[in-house]
Amino acid sequence: MKQNVPVLEEITAANTMLADSLRAVFREHGLLALNLIASPGAGKTSLLERTIALAADRLRIAVIEGDPTSSLDGERIGAAGAQAVQINTGGGCHLEARMVRQALDNLDLETCDVVVIENVGNLLCPTGWDLGEDLRVVVASLPEGDDKPIKYPMAFATAHAAVINKIDLAPHIPSQTATMRRNALAVNAELAVFELSCLTDAGLPAWIDWLAANLESKRRGAAPPHA
Amino acid sequence: MKQNVPVLEEITAANTMLADSLRAVFREHGLLALNLIASPGAGKTSLLERTIALAADRLRIAVIEGDPTSSLDGERIGAAGAQAVQINTGGGCHLEARMVRQALDNLDLETCDVVVIENVGNLLCPTGWDLGEDLRVVVASLPEGDDKPIKYPMAFATAHAAVINKIDLAPHIPSQTATMRRNALAVNAELAVFELSCLTDAGLPAWIDWLAANLESKRRGAAPPHA
Repeated sequence: MKQNVPVLEEITAANTMLADSLRAVFREHGLLALNLIASPGAGKTSLLERTIALAADRLRIAVIEGDPTSSLDGERIGAAGAQAVQINTGGGCHLEARMVRQALDNLDLETCDVVVIENVGNLLCPTGWDLGEDLRVVVASLPEGDDKPIKYPMAFATAHAAVINKIDLAPHIPSQTATMRRNALAVNAELAVFELSCLTDAGLPAWIDWLAANLESKRRGAAPPHA
Repeated sequence: MKQNVPVLEEITAANTMLADSLRAVFREHGLLALNLIASPGAGKTSLLERTIALAADRLRIAVIEGDPTSSLDGERIGAAGAQAVQINTGGGCHLEARMVRQALDNLDLETCDVVVIENVGNLLCPTGWDLGEDLRVVVASLPEGDDKPIKYPMAFATAHAAVINKIDLAPHIPSQTATMRRNALAVNAELAVFELSCLTDAGLPAWIDWLAANLESKRRGAAPPHA
């Protein structure tokens, strides 16, 4: 049992090396890569469906879908009109760089601008695994409770942006959008915070502008503006 | 890296031995033990707050609160009037039997009937760790989406009961209570399914009756009725 920590370090070191090679692939193709982290049911796939639809004339989006099982999300993304590859982790709680590398072989990188890696629904385990992304985005939905950033700080501490989803439910629940924003910024003051609803499309334009600005900035060779 | 699987097996085997000793403690004290598994924000703590309040004249409940960090939930349970012990996993994604064993030392087992172990918010990792519980309960909230049982089947496959929480939001969201119930039963036909709201208390009495019936059955020495 003493071997557990060294073994884990060996695996994550190998992961980081592979993540570096993914970063090189993304750079070579002028792609912006996102790692989307959230609880199950926070609305990651709905966010992608609406982003693909509303950004259709500005951003060509490809999605790598990570799920413990099933291909439901990959099918939804395909139906939304974007390239999609489904990864099933066989119950595994996070994606690793080697899985993303295999998935990339099944995407046409010449015809896309943004690659979104939708991680397995889990606010904890994915935070320790570099997938070569430019931007890490945590999605939290208002009905999960405005205390989520305080209770699961790692996902917020390691992200560039936080999406507060399902704000249309605000009139019906005790959880407050302003409190959730304040708690997210208390964990990480550098976060770009987006409040939005994938049912009403409120807040989606600002989110899409942010993606487009980060893509442009990466292609100019500048550091991404993030916020 | 080849050592990873044997090491994990060694750890889970040790966990199962400790879980057996927890089972003996629960039996000796005539306690019903629950392991509550859910995504972050599904409403595990709210369910316990309302259960403690509404069952006050029937069940003395003690709670072991598992969180990656913070003591927010333990404080909420204490305020609701029940014994509570907080476990912080330091970012860890699940509880293990050794953590529960330590927590038990800080509870007065003579003055309670039901011990609820509220696991870390995570639908995946906790499913593989036996905590000596009599009953495993998965909580999923309606706004997470009625497809959750299909996408995260392990939590439902290994549970005795599924609580569908936040049904008060049904008029405002596409997710359907009947579909979520059907999907849960498709994964595990033996599940007792409870549809409830911790804002309106709808469905809480049936849930509390089920706990009381399982406690009585355990104390009679009969197999718990579960459903």
